[in-house]
Amino acid sequence: MKVYKDLSPSPRTIMTPGPVEVDPRVLRAMSFPILGQFDPEFTSIMNETMEMLRKLFVTENEWAFPVDGTSRSGIEAVLVSLIEPGDKVLVPIYGRFGHLLTEIAQRCGAEVVTIEKEWGFVFDKEELVAAIRTHRPKLVAIVHGETSTGRMQSLEGIGQVCRDLDALLVVDAVATIGGVALETDRLLLDAVIGGTQKCLSVPAGMSPITYNSRAAAKIAKRKKIERGLLTGGEEESLLRPVQSNYFDLSMLQDYWSSARLNHHTEATSMLYALREGLRLVLEEGLEQRQARHKAHEAALVAGVQAMDLRLYGDASCKMPVVTCIEIPEGIDGESVRNLLLQDFGIEIASSFGVLKGKIWRIGTMGYSCSKRNVLLTLGALEAALLRHGHKLEAGLAVQAALNTYA
Amino acid sequence: MKVYKDLSPSPRTIMTPGPVEVDPRVLRAMSFPILGQFDPEFTSIMNETMEMLRKLFVTENEWAFPVDGTSRSGIEAVLVSLIEPGDKVLVPIYGRFGHLLTEIAQRCGAEVVTIEKEWGFVFDKEELVAAIRTHRPKLVAIVHGETSTGRMQSLEGIGQVCRDLDALLVVDAVATIGGVALETDRLLLDAVIGGTQKCLSVPAGMSPITYNSRAAAKIAKRKKIERGLLTGGEEESLLRPVQSNYFDLSMLQDYWSSARLNHHTEATSMLYALREGLRLVLEEGLEQRQARHKAHEAALVAGVQAMDLRLYGDASCKMPVVTCIEIPEGIDGESVRNLLLQDFGIEIASSFGVLKGKIWRIGTMGYSCSKRNVLLTLGALEAALLRHGHKLEAGLAVQAALNTYA
Repeated sequence: MKVYKDLSPSPRTIMTPGPVEVDPRVLRAMSFPILGQFDPEFTSIMNETMEMLRKLFVTENEWAFPVDGTSRSGIEAVLVSLIEPGDKVLVPIYGRFGHLLTEIAQRCGAEVVTIEKEWGFVFDKEELVAAIRTHRPKLVAIVHGETSTGRMQSLEGIGQVCRDLDALLVVDAVATIGGVALETDRLLLDAVIGGTQKCLSVPAGMSPITYNSRAAAKIAKRKKIERGLLTGGEEESLLRPVQSNYFDLSMLQDYWSSARLNHHTEATSMLYALREGLRLVLEEGLEQRQARHKAHEAALVAGVQAMDLRLYGDASCKMPVVTCIEIPEGIDGESVRNLLLQDFGIEIASSFGVLKGKIWRIGTMGYSCSKRNVLLTLGALEAALLRHGHKLEAGLAVQAALNTYA
Repeated sequence: MKVYKDLSPSPRTIMTPGPVEVDPRVLRAMSFPILGQFDPEFTSIMNETMEMLRKLFVTENEWAFPVDGTSRSGIEAVLVSLIEPGDKVLVPIYGRFGHLLTEIAQRCGAEVVTIEKEWGFVFDKEELVAAIRTHRPKLVAIVHGETSTGRMQSLEGIGQVCRDLDALLVVDAVATIGGVALETDRLLLDAVIGGTQKCLSVPAGMSPITYNSRAAAKIAKRKKIERGLLTGGEEESLLRPVQSNYFDLSMLQDYWSSARLNHHTEATSMLYALREGLRLVLEEGLEQRQARHKAHEAALVAGVQAMDLRLYGDASCKMPVVTCIEIPEGIDGESVRNLLLQDFGIEIASSFGVLKGKIWRIGTMGYSCSKRNVLLTLGALEAALLRHGHKLEAGLAVQAALNTYA
């Protein structure tokens, strides 16, 4: 019989735009014994997690809880619960994940209208407003931080326009939450989806979401109770049910509310992890954490520029937690990445679609966003470039980074 | 600022039909640092997990991998990928989870035909065959082990009938996999969904599935590639796409295949957990593990009967890993459960729908299925019943269980 060895992952410095290194306190939390899903100790952990999520999303929303799945499960839960077949949905696309929003909305039966921006740029407020006014969508879905291109879309002023025209505004903040400022209530965002494996430094496998009463009102109209749970006497609405059971937010709400109506079995260990990740965020403080992310970004960028490498994309909308670097002419980007991983134990990322093989992407997210990691990565990247015959003046990159810290 | 305390779950003996106690080796696996999703070390862990899942499901199927979500995510992934709107689907219902299959199939747009059995019983083979011949469904979805009633449906001979009539046979084995024999290939099952938090003793949050080439052929016809991943030149089928992106098995396949086409970010720590859980199953041996489950069931049942408690349901189809007990007249079932949890740290379950308040359910699953747990549970249940004024002869239950072990 084939022997499967003891798990023993090699040490890694993970500098991709996710998944990133997990805080050791979060790893420890996952090693605790589980509790039953209706154990009062566990439901209290569920409630605490909801409270902390509200602080993370800077919202007073009643609903803030994780969907049990990776980040796109949260996106799909929000879209499938808010989109009825035939609804017009506007998706402004400026990278891969705008296409993902489009594709999910289409599968929900939406009539999707898109506007597209050349990769590397984002939309002006006026362009977004004009598109919303022209198309009068029932829902606008937009990415806050596009890891595929390393760009960040300003959302200032968009919420009010959506509200004036009775559209719901849904924001994919998977890559930014916990690392970049995003104030759900002030920006009038109706629903926001976060990710765990990026700036929160929790493993992939949960997607925290929040939505307000405008979104909840639409969800309430589509409510359905599983027949196997009926005890008799309930009114069952059969009006336009959500086309997914797993992602039906009206059911997830009932499970996360004091009613505790059984839906799935909550993913205990992942919830332990999310709770600990949120504790770490709140202990550090949202603003302090954002400042830390900016400081290490500055050091990384200084080091990259000191190697005469060119940053990809429009600098005015650079995402603070992802740095995209154009792969120099004549250099095999994958070969450099392999050398970094195999010899240095450092992982950086390539990109998708049209940017595949054109850029490297370096994340500075969560626990991975540290002075140590930035310095080690710059030193290793310099060595890898030299090893691949690229001309540069050795030693400058790390010194430049150290200067920004000084 | 509110202080959220260090995680410190109280010790628990979890004797519900899931989630159950997690093997300490699995807990330890989750505390290891993560690897990037395309790190060769990690993709090798993915491949090993697929190999071990094939052994668990007793199949030569190419496709055997986890869906990143709780058990019903696996069910929904299989159903939404195999059911096209308008397809006729037959669901034989004999408990809550048959209703769940119905409800998910309906949300997939199926024309669902159901046959129902009184709770506490299962179908005869002839009844199933007759229904399949009468309704000629494109897909039959059935629960193998119904935890709501503690019954197990024999699947012998059903696969051949489905094959003869060109129907796909989908089996929900969430509650039985890893504890009860289930031979996917011999039984001609086209797709099987397992659960982690029951007989595998891995936390909830992943759902291992397998499906054969008949199922894969249907999935292949609906294949779609995300636009944001297109590099140019691909043929994109827009024929009847699956109404979910997250659960589209044609995409999940590409991610789990050597193509490694990016879909979600695999839930690293949960995959570590599943891999370790599967190692434990294979080290113990499938047959030895099934025998262990039967041995502890026998001891539990002997103890329960020694207290003159009545077992619920048809004994000939009792699930070996769940024991349902009728709550005696005049006893408040929830009060007994609360006493067990609060004073003894032992959790047993109630049930759903029409059985709510009528029965207790005790699981003997995975790591929780041990002599120690059975003896402690019987002793505590006896004490709780005495405390609630129930008449019984003290001491008999534990002695009866010890006798079966002797």
